[in-house]
Formats: sequence, structure tokens, C-alpha cells
Amino acid sequence: MNSTNELWSDFENHFEEIVADLSLPPSSSGISWSYQRIKEILEYNVPDGKRTRGLTVVSCYDAISNGQSTKAGRKLALTMGWAVEILQAAFLVADDLMDQSELRRGKNCWYRKNGVGYQAVNDCMVLESCVFTLLRKHFRSLPCYADLVDLFHTVLLRTEMGQSLDMATSEQPEVDFSSFTEEKYSAIIQYKTAYYSFYLPIAVAFYLTGITDEECHKKSCDILVKIGSLFQIQDDYLDVYGDPEITGKIGTDIEDNKCSWLIVKAISIASGEQLKILESCYGKKNGESVKKVKEVFGDLNLVFEFKKYENETYQEIKLEIENFDDTRVPQSVFLSLLNKIYKRKK
Amino acid sequence: MNSTNELWSDFENHFEEIVADLSLPPSSSGISWSYQRIKEILEYNVPDGKRTRGLTVVSCYDAISNGQSTKAGRKLALTMGWAVEILQAAFLVADDLMDQSELRRGKNCWYRKNGVGYQAVNDCMVLESCVFTLLRKHFRSLPCYADLVDLFHTVLLRTEMGQSLDMATSEQPEVDFSSFTEEKYSAIIQYKTAYYSFYLPIAVAFYLTGITDEECHKKSCDILVKIGSLFQIQDDYLDVYGDPEITGKIGTDIEDNKCSWLIVKAISIASGEQLKILESCYGKKNGESVKKVKEVFGDLNLVFEFKKYENETYQEIKLEIENFDDTRVPQSVFLSLLNKIYKRKK
Repeated sequence: MNSTNELWSDFENHFEEIVADLSLPPSSSGISWSYQRIKEILEYNVPDGKRTRGLTVVSCYDAISNGQSTKAGRKLALTMGWAVEILQAAFLVADDLMDQSELRRGKNCWYRKNGVGYQAVNDCMVLESCVFTLLRKHFRSLPCYADLVDLFHTVLLRTEMGQSLDMATSEQPEVDFSSFTEEKYSAIIQYKTAYYSFYLPIAVAFYLTGITDEECHKKSCDILVKIGSLFQIQDDYLDVYGDPEITGKIGTDIEDNKCSWLIVKAISIASGEQLKILESCYGKKNGESVKKVKEVFGDLNLVFEFKKYENETYQEIKLEIENFDDTRVPQSVFLSLLNKIYKRKK
Repeated sequence: MNSTNELWSDFENHFEEIVADLSLPPSSSGISWSYQRIKEILEYNVPDGKRTRGLTVVSCYDAISNGQSTKAGRKLALTMGWAVEILQAAFLVADDLMDQSELRRGKNCWYRKNGVGYQAVNDCMVLESCVFTLLRKHFRSLPCYADLVDLFHTVLLRTEMGQSLDMATSEQPEVDFSSFTEEKYSAIIQYKTAYYSFYLPIAVAFYLTGITDEECHKKSCDILVKIGSLFQIQDDYLDVYGDPEITGKIGTDIEDNKCSWLIVKAISIASGEQLKILESCYGKKNGESVKKVKEVFGDLNLVFEFKKYENETYQEIKLEIENFDDTRVPQSVFLSLLNKIYKRKK
């Protein structure tokens, strides 16, 4: 427990240095105001999350280097952790603007802050640029530099493609269940969530500890995408069945016509009559329709179906981890991620 | 003249290949829709501009390789030209959304297209990602790959910072001329326009022809940023004094409270009384105020001041080009750019 606290405070303490690094203006120049703004964007949008992705980078780095890391190496891992958190912030600033959300992490969304508005579009591009500035400043001399940059770019594009598919599927003018297929659902959650939230943090830790071979990355990616997909499926479940007191948010997937695990499952097992109710009530922004959808979900026993799925998937992934055989990477790296999310309530 | 036409058609013909390259989905997958959307985003937003930046890449490549290039090398230059045009498209999609513009290149702005809306935020990030996908697919094996990626990232961040400073300066709640300084103006135009429009196309052509040394890049950058700054100053002039029939747009810098060359110049030479008129009328969205600002501009002889500045700056840059001494780079590379923009009407 002590080491978790230590990790947290090491990570916390490193943030100030990251901000200074990214917002230190050149000696004299008319552009110094823009550096000041980078500082504001970073401080408002980056540090207040759960930091799961950033902390995963460092804990994976620690697990693999197993006490053998240098002080400089550990510092690079902390910097990389914040790079991943900054990437996450870029996605959130963009998502909140696109979804016209109100609150994020208990505060006004950045675009709703006084004087920001549409400038948030530029700001999310600035956040993205900060990620690559950190890479350039601190990792340029590593032999794996090009691999690292390519990894971030590949993951970025995948996330954007997942986001794009997710929005297009939910923003149809009419509810159209023929587009809510399992294949599409699986693509959405892998692309928009799993790669950047689960594969990326582990993959960068691999590069920092010298694990660069494609085979190990590929095998790990397979496992991590499965964990990431389960994570997103839980998110879909909690959107309807989570306790808002615990999750901190009130779900709107049903009225937003989201291609979610629950509706995809419901479509696959509903009777003709139930399907009719879902078709006429899903994606409608009124309480009565949402209630009817939830009633059908209840009749279909989706809570039970989800728990069954969660448990079976947990067992499957666990088995896959136990078969993961690479002396450089302790299985605990994957297992701790899996256990951290299993049966999560928020 | 023939070679200009040839260049244009070579470049034109290469676009289809670029689109196919970026939108070819993996064999079977739920994500194929997202690739289709990439195709749409590219075809709508990339090819219809003047293509100056993209063509500059190829013509500079041709000038330096001087008939000695291979077919494969030339093809890489064409690809790089389109990468620069795609970057430009990313900026334009973002700018139009932020400025809530209506038309771009004679069509509805992308975000105003049916069914796009806020998804344009994600789409401009997708366009950015396309740039780096092209780099990864076609330039990964070059020794200068990391330099190329770093160059794009550096230029991206500078452009975003310039954009950010430009917006913040014009979107003050009250007109505040104390922030319209020459130093700030010069920073805005260098950062938001000159680097990506003038230095970037030449710099990538340098890398592709093996010119990688910092000294040559630095000396060229100095000249190109000057040409780029003159280009933006002309833009500011044309916003008020251009012929809308020729420029294709109706300027709104005065009512938008833009930190433009004209107002910065006016502030520096106006009498106390003229300054008062400017202070009460600049940045006001009514025709009467705009008219009064234009009257003061007329009294201050800003057309004459601009032409004097344009001519003097042209001579200065020309002299600097004549002193540019590097056997690998013909001076015509810079001179043709300078002559192309000198006294431009659109």
C-alpha cells in the first residue's frame, strides 16, 4: 500500500515540472502570452482525473525494471505518464465540446469557461502538440524514439476513428437497429477506448524498459484490448445501472441513441414485441420513453446477462494472462489491471 | 510555362492515390465505415484550394534535384506536397468552426455540412493524423524520418500558438489598443502563418533532397519567415483594400477587432483625435463604425504607407536572397516565392 502512495506522490510531484517545461517562453518575444495560455490549459484540464493511464505507465515501468532502474530512467517514466494523461485531456476537451457536456471532473468543461468557447478546438490541438513536445524534448535521443512517436500517432488515429464511428452511429436521424451490430459495437469500443486507455500506457513502458520486439507488443496488445473492451462494456452497464452517487454522473446513453452493450445485447435476445417497443422508444429524449426502454431491459434480465458476461470474460482473460509467457514481463502487469476493473462500481 | 502545367497535373493526378492510401480499410472489420469517412473528409476539404504550399514542395524539390531525381524520389515529393496540403486542410476546418465562417473555397464550410456539426472537431484531428500516417507509410525508412516528424510537430505547435494569440487579442471584451503592439503583431503573423505556409514546404523539400544541416535550414527559415510575414501583411491590407471580385472574400477584420497591420500602423501614426475615433469605432459590428475607421485609415494614407512598406520589404528580402550562398539551393527557390506574392491582388 505504501508503494501505491509513493507512486501517487512521485507522479503528483512531477506535474509542476512538466508544466514548467511546456510553458517556459523563449527569452523575449511577443509570443510569451501563448506560453502562459499553455500553462492554463494544462493546469485546468490535465491533473484532476483518476490518472489511471499515467500511473499505469509508471507502475508497469517499475514492475518490469524491478528495482533496477536509474533515477533518470524513472523520471522518464513519470514524464511519459504525464504525456499519456495530456493525450487523454486532449480527447476530453474535444469530446466535451462535441457532446456539449456541462461538467467534467466536477468543474465546468473547458469550452464553457469564460472566454474560451470555440477556442477550445485550438486548445485540444495544443494539448496534442504538448504530448509530442515532451517526446521530442525527453526521448529524442533514445533508439526507440521513432517507434514511440509512431505508437502515439497510431493510437491517436484509432481513437479518432472510434470516436467518429461512435458519433455517426448514435447521430442517425432515425433509430436504425440494423446498424447496431456486434461487429460494429466491438470495433467502436476497441478503437475509441481500449487502445489508448490500456495498450498505450503499457506499450510505452515496454519501450522505456527496452522491450521493443513486435511479438511481445502484439501478444500484450491482444490481452490489453480485451481488458479495455471489458472496461468500456462496464461503462455502458454503469451508464444505466450504476449508482450516480458513486459514478458521479447521470447516464444518457438511452436517450442519446448510443450503440451500447445493453442495447446490442437486448436486440439479440428480444422478442418481436419487445423489439418494437425498443425501436419506438430508444434514442428519444423524454423520460417516458427512457422508462419503457428500461422496462424491456429489466424483462430481458440484462443485469444478469451483464454479470454473466463480465464473469466469463474475466475468466477468459485471466486464462490468457496465465498463458502469457515472457520472462521480461511479469503477468502481474496485466493481472493488476484486470483485477482493478473487475466488478468496478465507478 | 509548360513545366508549371506539368507540375500541376502531376500533383493533381497523385491525389487519388493519396486518398486510396489513407482510406483503404483492413480486410474485414466493423471499422470500415470510418475509413469511408476519412475519404469523404479528404475529398471535401483538401483538393480545392490554390495548392500553393503543396506545389511549392514539389517545385523546390525539382529545382534542387535539377533533373537528377529518380521516379520514386519525385513520387515521395508529390506525397509530401499532399501531406502539407492536408495539414493546411486541418487548420482550415478548425478555423472555420472557431470563426463560425460560412463559406470556404466557394462551398459550405465542412462543419456546416449536413450531419457534420461538432464532429468537425474530431475530423480536424483525423486530418492531422492523416499527415503523420503518410509520413509513417512513405518516409519511415529515410534517415531523416525523425527530423521530418519533429519538423511537422514544431510547425504545428507554432501555428496553434499563433492562432491562439490571434484569437485572444481580437476577442477582448473591450477594445484595448495597448495590446496591439508591433512586437505582438509580428509574433502573431510569424507563428500563425509564416512557418507552416513558407518554411515548412521548403524545409521538407530540403530533407527529401538530403539537405539536413541546421545552418542551411536556419538561414532559409529566416528568409522564408520574412516572405511569409509580408504575405500575411498583404492579407491584412487586402482585407480592407482588396477587390472582393478578385479576392473572393469580404473582409471583416475591422469589425472583428483583429490585430491587423493596418490598425497597428494607424495607432503608431495617428493624432490624439484620430486615435479617439479608432478607439470608439474599431471592433464594432456596425457599418457606421467601420466607415469611420476606414475614413481615418484614408486620412492617414494607409494605402500609400502599405505600398511603401511592401516595396521596401521586397527590396530588403531580395537583397537577403542575393546574399544567400549555398551551392545546393538555387536562389530562385526563394526568389520565385517572393515574386509570386509581390504586389499580389488575391
